[in-house]
Amino acid sequence: MSPHRPIDYGEASGRARAVFDDIKRTRKVEDVNNFWKYLAHDPATLERTWASVKEIMAPGALDALTKEMLYLAVSVTNGCGYCIASHGAAARKAGMSEAMFGELMAVVGMANETNRLANGYRVPVDPAFDS
Amino acid sequence: MSPHRPIDYGEASGRARAVFDDIKRTRKVEDVNNFWKYLAHDPATLERTWASVKEIMAPGALDALTKEMLYLAVSVTNGCGYCIASHGAAARKAGMSEAMFGELMAVVGMANETNRLANGYRVPVDPAFDS
Amino acid sequence: MSPHRPIDYGEASGRARAVFDDIKRTRKVEDVNNFWKYLAHDPATLERTWASVKEIMAPGALDALTKEMLYLAVSVTNGCGYCIASHGAAARKAGMSEAMFGELMAVVGMANETNRLANGYRVPVDPAFDS
Amino acid sequence: MSPHRPIDYGEASGRARAVFDDIKRTRKVEDVNNFWKYLAHDPATLERTWASVKEIMAPGALDALTKEMLYLAVSVTNGCGYCIASHGAAARKAGMSEAMFGELMAVVGMANETNRLANGYRVPVDPAFDS
Amino acid sequence: MSPHRPIDYGEASGRARAVFDDIKRTRKVEDVNNFWKYLAHDPATLERTWASVKEIMAPGALDALTKEMLYLAVSVTNGCGYCIASHGAAARKAGMSEAMFGELMAVVGMANETNRLANGYRVPVDPAFDS
Amino acid sequence: MSPHRPIDYGEASGRARAVFDDIKRTRKVEDVNNFWKYLAHDPATLERTWASVKEIMAPGALDALTKEMLYLAVSVTNGCGYCIASHGAAARKAGMSEAMFGELMAVVGMANETNRLANGYRVPVDPAFDS
Repeated sequence: MSPHRPIDYGEASGRARAVFDDIKRTRKVEDVNNFWKYLAHDPATLERTWASVKEIMAPGALDALTKEMLYLAVSVTNGCGYCIASHGAAARKAGMSEAMFGELMAVVGMANETNRLANGYRVPVDPAFDS
Repeated sequence: MSPHRPIDYGEASGRARAVFDDIKRTRKVEDVNNFWKYLAHDPATLERTWASVKEIMAPGALDALTKEMLYLAVSVTNGCGYCIASHGAAARKAGMSEAMFGELMAVVGMANETNRLANGYRVPVDPAFDS
Repeated sequence: MSPHRPIDYGEASGRARAVFDDIKRTRKVEDVNNFWKYLAHDPATLERTWASVKEIMAPGALDALTKEMLYLAVSVTNGCGYCIASHGAAARKAGMSEAMFGELMAVVGMANETNRLANGYRVPVDPAFDS
Repeated sequence: MSPHRPIDYGEASGRARAVFDDIKRTRKVEDVNNFWKYLAHDPATLERTWASVKEIMAPGALDALTKEMLYLAVSVTNGCGYCIASHGAAARKAGMSEAMFGELMAVVGMANETNRLANGYRVPVDPAFDS
Repeated sequence: MSPHRPIDYGEASGRARAVFDDIKRTRKVEDVNNFWKYLAHDPATLERTWASVKEIMAPGALDALTKEMLYLAVSVTNGCGYCIASHGAAARKAGMSEAMFGELMAVVGMANETNRLANGYRVPVDPAFDS
Repeated sequence: MSPHRPIDYGEASGRARAVFDDIKRTRKVEDVNNFWKYLAHDPATLERTWASVKEIMAPGALDALTKEMLYLAVSVTNGCGYCIASHGAAARKAGMSEAMFGELMAVVGMANETNRLANGYRVPVDPAFDS
């Protein structure tokens, strides 16, 4: 079976269904996103990925909104179209306003620019940063 | 003159000195980092980069700490050694605790992983994300 | 002529046709993929790229399947949509089962995650790795 | 405590020691690599990362050597210096000969080249790859 | 208002209109590209980005065509679909022939390949390059 | 023999020596760079890479300086330290002034920034770019 099609709840294995159920319960949603329906082709990866995401994205020293914005910043840097769409939606759901999105994008753009300026000018690390 | 050496205040052009002075005033620091001393080889880029960084990193809809953490997340994703060191230091100065750093790194690692899972499984964007 | 359209066999130059013929003979296929039809806009690049691919992908110390899986791992990491589709198909043709694809994706995801953990924690190379 | 220094067994928390012990047992090594000693700054990430690596890198549909070579291919593509050194060593330990390394590098180089040719020529996915 | 739709001149703020007008005047075009219509969601980023692009892309020590080709080389390397399309068009408008495009793509492909060969073989910088 | 050490002319195989000789003749240099001395571990890759570089970097529709600057722009974007050093030196030898380097870096930085703005705002390709 091609892995490039979604597996819906009805045709999912028991192991995949258990993950789908936990995602729906944890996020209080009616259905899971395509990402999880595609990962269901490999139940071991589905389980491990969801367990990690659930643990990592729970509020801790950083709140849920900050975590979603960091996720979005990485996805924009990598140019992952799916992830930009899904984590943009998740960040908005967690409270990201359009003004916050605008500032996030400005920082991400600037960081990508100055990362290359530092590379190209071959700037050595200041001793103060290593202490 | 090779661009791969720093230009200190004493040998900087008037235009570069004005930028150095504004960085020191704005950040309340004794000296500027290597990044700026290397950019001083091209005063136009030095001026424009500092003006953009100053505007973008000022607190707005997002606070200074969140902005520094986003900068760090991008730099880690791109593997820019200088930027990881300098923005790690800046984020700590802005209040990032080691617990916050640990959670930031966990999110950045996870996002880099799931970005590739979404790529490789060729997951299409859910219609709900486009509305 | 815009390079953003395919050049089919019928309209290809003699030099491009010779490459198309060799691809079809080597791979035992009826027609070449879009990739080659687009490269046909530049016969020098078409010839050189096919000669390199033919030499590199031939079984040697590594078998054809392993080579296709390495190609796929790189393409997923870079997020090249065309390459993920074409080398995914090639790997399956060379014998990659869905279980193998699932494990490949798990490794690729994990490597992308730990690459960033190593970057962000600024981990120095163990002396043992340099001996 | 700066996260940019290793935590050795003697000063590690009980939770980190348990992970160190399992790594040493599983890999039959005297000591753990720097990577784990740095992750020990965040025991939750240390535990989760090791559990994932242990599960993913165990032989399954793909053997241990193939998995290490995929890991190395990703690390080379991303330019992660630490990971290239550590997974190069791991792949050699798992049986990668220098001839295999040479072919791996040739494939990784070629894939990075053709990924960009496909991007730049804007090659559309062949319908056959989607079926 | 979702940032994922264009803002046309008629509905743009006064600040965004002023930028649109300057782009049209500078580039002698009837309308601005989608890129600017999307940035109009954040007038500060729109203004700053246009001011930087205008300054950087003006002929100086490098002519306009060379600058557009460098922009295209970066965009192809990063796999930014929009940027490949828009800067490909801009480079052609500035005089890039198809033969030049073919050679640009060959260099970009080769550089992406040898960058990874240098990474993977862990080649140290020759002392001569540092003098 | 570890591939992570250079192979000098005296210990090189006949096949590698022939490549070294051709590089020295073509570039009018006394010795080859480390890059070639490391590739000498795999004579097939050494031969193929040099043959491709020689063909691609020869002046054609684009002159040698423009080609070296494109190579440098890609290397800076990818963060390949060795390649930034070696192709920076090569570009200077081919005539890149410090003013040209400064403008190249400004373009590369800007392109890396706007690539991410286009990604994050999910800007669709203008129909005019596809015609």
